[in-house]
Amino acid sequence: MPKLVDHELRRSELAEAVWTVIRRDGLQRASVRNVAREAGWSMGALRHYFATQSELLCFAMQLVGDRARARIAALEPTPDPRRAVEQLLHELVPLDDERRAESAVWLAFTGRALVDPQQRAIYERIHDQLNGACTRAIEALAAAGLTAEGLDVPLEAGRLHALLDGLALHAVMRPDEVPPSRIVAAIARHLDTLR
Amino acid sequence: MPKLVDHELRRSELAEAVWTVIRRDGLQRASVRNVAREAGWSMGALRHYFATQSELLCFAMQLVGDRARARIAALEPTPDPRRAVEQLLHELVPLDDERRAESAVWLAFTGRALVDPQQRAIYERIHDQLNGACTRAIEALAAAGLTAEGLDVPLEAGRLHALLDGLALHAVMRPDEVPPSRIVAAIARHLDTLR
Repeated sequence: MPKLVDHELRRSELAEAVWTVIRRDGLQRASVRNVAREAGWSMGALRHYFATQSELLCFAMQLVGDRARARIAALEPTPDPRRAVEQLLHELVPLDDERRAESAVWLAFTGRALVDPQQRAIYERIHDQLNGACTRAIEALAAAGLTAEGLDVPLEAGRLHALLDGLALHAVMRPDEVPPSRIVAAIARHLDTLR
Repeated sequence: MPKLVDHELRRSELAEAVWTVIRRDGLQRASVRNVAREAGWSMGALRHYFATQSELLCFAMQLVGDRARARIAALEPTPDPRRAVEQLLHELVPLDDERRAESAVWLAFTGRALVDPQQRAIYERIHDQLNGACTRAIEALAAAGLTAEGLDVPLEAGRLHALLDGLALHAVMRPDEVPPSRIVAAIARHLDTLR
């Protein structure tokens, strides 16, 4: 199916251009026009993927999900369950400039999803994936005896998920106050208090 | 100073109209035009307070801050320090439709502040106020002997603040999954784990 392969290749080319523009110029200057210029595509060619600022943000959000999933799939396995959970959670929070740009896309997207039903459906999928990751993290700690007995798993998964999203929001909005070291310490402390 | 009084009175009239439109029609339909119609003002008269959608959101955000501060000032004093902290924190999270509308304004505003320097300055003020409230909450629990010894207060204040903002975000985006009872339980559990 050469057409499908071609489509995937072109999509990943475009994804690279979108990411370059966001990282170099900031989210506020990531316009359809600037992405077209970066990719060396016509506005018409771009339209197959996104035609408006809102659709560009949807595309970028999907890209953020792809990036996080790829990093998680590539994690070195570790026999230490606490370390494994921290490794996973660290991929979901802004511990470097790349992940801070991802969190900025997520936050901008979430603000728009609030008032746009189509974007809200995408938000809900991401929310459910993150909540699932937090649930598996809590379950893994419980199975390894690293939590108190009789933990309320859905409550703890929701609390961990809220913490991660709150930390991501603060790290994007106040990077000096919430540097990577603070995020790592907050997550470690949070997991410690589950014992 | 009759002019100042008049200005304050008109501002509060307008605030009521903004809030009525947000609550009745949803944030997505809270336009300058709809607020003017609700208040019975001309677009020209409104322009003194806000002229664009973005300025309307700033106005609404200031209103949310005023509302939360007024509720906190009106709290019944209680001799129970844990109860006092919970009362305070509950005013900052979406435990009813009114506070859910406030959190929706906060989230939409934060998404915009990400790419708008002027709005970011307002975001930073709100962020600092919330962080201050979380710091005082942790200090009050520590003073009452309701935390472990040697708590890292800035870390715990940041963690509590992140939890509150994450819960508010989730309650706005997934109200069925994060109802008020879940928010109350997550906060109570969080404070329990500080011992």
